[in-house]
Amino acid sequence: MRTKKKCVVLGAMFFACLFLFGSLDLSAQSAFNPKPKTAQEAIEFVVMANRILSNENIFDYLGHVSLRNPENPNTFFISRAIAPDLVTKGDILEVDLDGKVITQSKFAPYSERIIHGSIYKARPDVNSVVHAHPIDACIMANAGVQFRPMIHHAAIFWQGVPIYDEYDFTAPKATGFLVTTKEEGDRVARILGPRKAMLMVAHGCIVVGDSLPYAVYATIVLRDNIVVQLGAEQASRQPKYMSEAQSKHMGQILGGGLERSWNYYVNRMKKANPDMR
Amino acid sequence: MRTKKKCVVLGAMFFACLFLFGSLDLSAQSAFNPKPKTAQEAIEFVVMANRILSNENIFDYLGHVSLRNPENPNTFFISRAIAPDLVTKGDILEVDLDGKVITQSKFAPYSERIIHGSIYKARPDVNSVVHAHPIDACIMANAGVQFRPMIHHAAIFWQGVPIYDEYDFTAPKATGFLVTTKEEGDRVARILGPRKAMLMVAHGCIVVGDSLPYAVYATIVLRDNIVVQLGAEQASRQPKYMSEAQSKHMGQILGGGLERSWNYYVNRMKKANPDMR
Amino acid sequence: MRTKKKCVVLGAMFFACLFLFGSLDLSAQSAFNPKPKTAQEAIEFVVMANRILSNENIFDYLGHVSLRNPENPNTFFISRAIAPDLVTKGDILEVDLDGKVITQSKFAPYSERIIHGSIYKARPDVNSVVHAHPIDACIMANAGVQFRPMIHHAAIFWQGVPIYDEYDFTAPKATGFLVTTKEEGDRVARILGPRKAMLMVAHGCIVVGDSLPYAVYATIVLRDNIVVQLGAEQASRQPKYMSEAQSKHMGQILGGGLERSWNYYVNRMKKANPDMR
Amino acid sequence: MRTKKKCVVLGAMFFACLFLFGSLDLSAQSAFNPKPKTAQEAIEFVVMANRILSNENIFDYLGHVSLRNPENPNTFFISRAIAPDLVTKGDILEVDLDGKVITQSKFAPYSERIIHGSIYKARPDVNSVVHAHPIDACIMANAGVQFRPMIHHAAIFWQGVPIYDEYDFTAPKATGFLVTTKEEGDRVARILGPRKAMLMVAHGCIVVGDSLPYAVYATIVLRDNIVVQLGAEQASRQPKYMSEAQSKHMGQILGGGLERSWNYYVNRMKKANPDMR
Repeated sequence: MRTKKKCVVLGAMFFACLFLFGSLDLSAQSAFNPKPKTAQEAIEFVVMANRILSNENIFDYLGHVSLRNPENPNTFFISRAIAPDLVTKGDILEVDLDGKVITQSKFAPYSERIIHGSIYKARPDVNSVVHAHPIDACIMANAGVQFRPMIHHAAIFWQGVPIYDEYDFTAPKATGFLVTTKEEGDRVARILGPRKAMLMVAHGCIVVGDSLPYAVYATIVLRDNIVVQLGAEQASRQPKYMSEAQSKHMGQILGGGLERSWNYYVNRMKKANPDMR
Repeated sequence: MRTKKKCVVLGAMFFACLFLFGSLDLSAQSAFNPKPKTAQEAIEFVVMANRILSNENIFDYLGHVSLRNPENPNTFFISRAIAPDLVTKGDILEVDLDGKVITQSKFAPYSERIIHGSIYKARPDVNSVVHAHPIDACIMANAGVQFRPMIHHAAIFWQGVPIYDEYDFTAPKATGFLVTTKEEGDRVARILGPRKAMLMVAHGCIVVGDSLPYAVYATIVLRDNIVVQLGAEQASRQPKYMSEAQSKHMGQILGGGLERSWNYYVNRMKKANPDMR
Repeated sequence: MRTKKKCVVLGAMFFACLFLFGSLDLSAQSAFNPKPKTAQEAIEFVVMANRILSNENIFDYLGHVSLRNPENPNTFFISRAIAPDLVTKGDILEVDLDGKVITQSKFAPYSERIIHGSIYKARPDVNSVVHAHPIDACIMANAGVQFRPMIHHAAIFWQGVPIYDEYDFTAPKATGFLVTTKEEGDRVARILGPRKAMLMVAHGCIVVGDSLPYAVYATIVLRDNIVVQLGAEQASRQPKYMSEAQSKHMGQILGGGLERSWNYYVNRMKKANPDMR
Repeated sequence: MRTKKKCVVLGAMFFACLFLFGSLDLSAQSAFNPKPKTAQEAIEFVVMANRILSNENIFDYLGHVSLRNPENPNTFFISRAIAPDLVTKGDILEVDLDGKVITQSKFAPYSERIIHGSIYKARPDVNSVVHAHPIDACIMANAGVQFRPMIHHAAIFWQGVPIYDEYDFTAPKATGFLVTTKEEGDRVARILGPRKAMLMVAHGCIVVGDSLPYAVYATIVLRDNIVVQLGAEQASRQPKYMSEAQSKHMGQILGGGLERSWNYYVNRMKKANPDMR
């Protein structure tokens, strides 16, 4: 009896240690590759990004993130229209660059998927797009404050961060502050230009990357820099901004830390999402 | 021995996967109906809303949410006077539009239940009422700042958000900033008028909806927009507001995302409230 | 085998439901009594208050809360000098009103226990004292902003909240901003006067109550009102303050909600502190 | 059958109480020694500090903390280049004061490890260094606001907190806002001088201590004081600052609470990091 009980207890402890908490298997770290090779891996990355950006308060019930299909540059993967924190593999749809859903599915896609398609079309260098409404990005966009890199790793935005405010309220199928028509999608892509991020009045932000971990990372850095910038501008009439030369210099030498940030976000997300362990 | 141990471990793992964390049964999603048909379902919705609004920092130990009885439009369901985060089905009372408690119960009702009754009387289109004191709503009300939609989904408040400040400190049974008399309740309903929300000086806010998930959703959007508005007004002397035409346009095309937001809030609430899984 | 496994799983589920999470035994609610009758009960209350105030971000590694001994009005219970979030029953000391430790113990007491003793001596109506350094109280004290009730339940502070700044840096055993001498303790009690709370420059706040649940509650309301007041003053040059008459009126009719707030804080604390379930 | 089931349940309960939650073994408290004697203990301290500073929002995916080798004052322990919240014992490297990695390892070190080496060289009194980018420190540094002790325990910074802004963008191997060359490291150490902390434009802060628990503690106090100072300066044109004499007086009598703060941070960290229990 005693022995059996001990076994059970030991078994339970073992299970607890392995599965219940912690012990997040980080062996994947050594094999970190920000650019998946297969559609299957890409889908898993999209699920991870949805959960991570929810966990980092970038997404609430809104927001979406996509990844270009590594097996076909003319399509991308994105969740069906549900809250990002609930996304699982079965929710990921394949969509073409005009926004047409390729996957056979009864599920509705995000109405704003055209944002992703238009950017992938205009930017062959981009493989991942995040569209979100983090509170601080909304504040800066609506305040009309020009984004300036303030913390060193935000120098990745040395090309500037425009504020989009060319919504069309009159076009036939226009949906105001939502980007749902090809015309609006193309305008969004044009104003983003060669840059990594854009704020959007009454809406939020768009951030792009050559990989999904980069786009996730850059979105979080964008938000953190906004908090620092708005805080510094409130605390002083003459906050210290990086010069353009400084941010360009920094922005070009940065970039080695992608595995570090990705593993950090994954670990935090797993702590908060037992079903993702 | 070994086999038995394995069984226990596997059993425990199975149980853990199913019940302990995650695996929140979202099959209900497909059957989402924001308007319950029976009193029994209505009561369950009221419990959910209490827990969700607590989890989203809309409620603290104060605040209440009600739902009109789908089986009798002249009564509504609301918790007895306890902290919303502790509400279970047994705490829900049926109350008539004059504030009379119908349910046989030894439990005390909220003294401010008349807010709900007066609004249901004046607004046949309203099926759910939230009254709460979120910090940011209190700030805006006490600052006397006029609410303006800033983020696109806050366009649902295109009819405006008045600030209530007609408390009666002299009437016989008046309780100052508390709304406990029919006269004060009717005044509250009159100033709310046909709108979706109202701020209240020294008190908080009231938000209404044609369904409980809508009222819950709208309360959270109200708060988020207040954070953006106060932030943008602090960061700039000329923040960008939606024009009245823009917010009206947006406010009328929005609304398809109710299932998405409800499932999001439910999931977050269940993660934080194991007894609700 | 199957049956056994099922038993284990069921057993584990049962245990999980009962002990692991949730199912916080709230039967105590019905027997709520804010004023314990015995020293033993008083000690349990002091432990609860330490954990609650830590969980509500009122305490960090500093801060202390005491309760007058219900069996001897000339002594009070307070933790030994450890972080409040770590306090258990074995850490509670009995101290007399001059700060002398009565309990036989090798543990060091808080150097500032004289705050509690001096107030109990000067205020027979006070049975519980909280001394803490919540960030927002520090901001208001150091800004020299006069506290004004802004949210209705903060009307309990209708007698005003003075700001203490009479530290003695020259007296023989003076410890500057710490209150460790009887002289400084008596000065603190004198300036607090008949009021419920006081802010302290470079230090934090003191809040008192006729019961421990009241002192805990009032400390949290004090903090929340400060957040609203500083926010409203920042958002507007003319925020709406309660008139003195209004806050006095409200402050005198409030008070029925103590069980509600106490159960709320206890529930939140238990969710975050498994060892307290 | 019944008995067996009961055993399992009891066993599971026992295990749950002991290992799952709570029951953080605080027996170590009585043996608290802020200065480990062996390299092995030092490594464990460095792991703890990484996790604590992550848990207290001082670190995100960036930031590092080191401890001078108690067995060899000419080397120190610091993690390899990964996110601090993921650090375990196997990640700790021994590095000499010129930044040369002593440990045989395939792992890359932090490029900014020279910050630590240069300070240990210049300051024999320093045994632990924290370099981090907490949002509030970044705000203050970029706003160019002079740090002033506002809360009593921040008087430990009575010697002042300079703002570093002497980055070299032109030197051969210069990396702009990163401190990666010996020249930049020595400049950092020179401007820090005999002080406990320094802010860094576009970067964050450096905090040092004669022990690791002290450096951890001081970093958190630095951040908290910044929040109070920026808040008070925003709420008032004439906030109350400590005089230099007051902060010097306080700063010299403080210091007895290190065990209290360390146990507090450890407990919070363990609650959030099951793998560290």
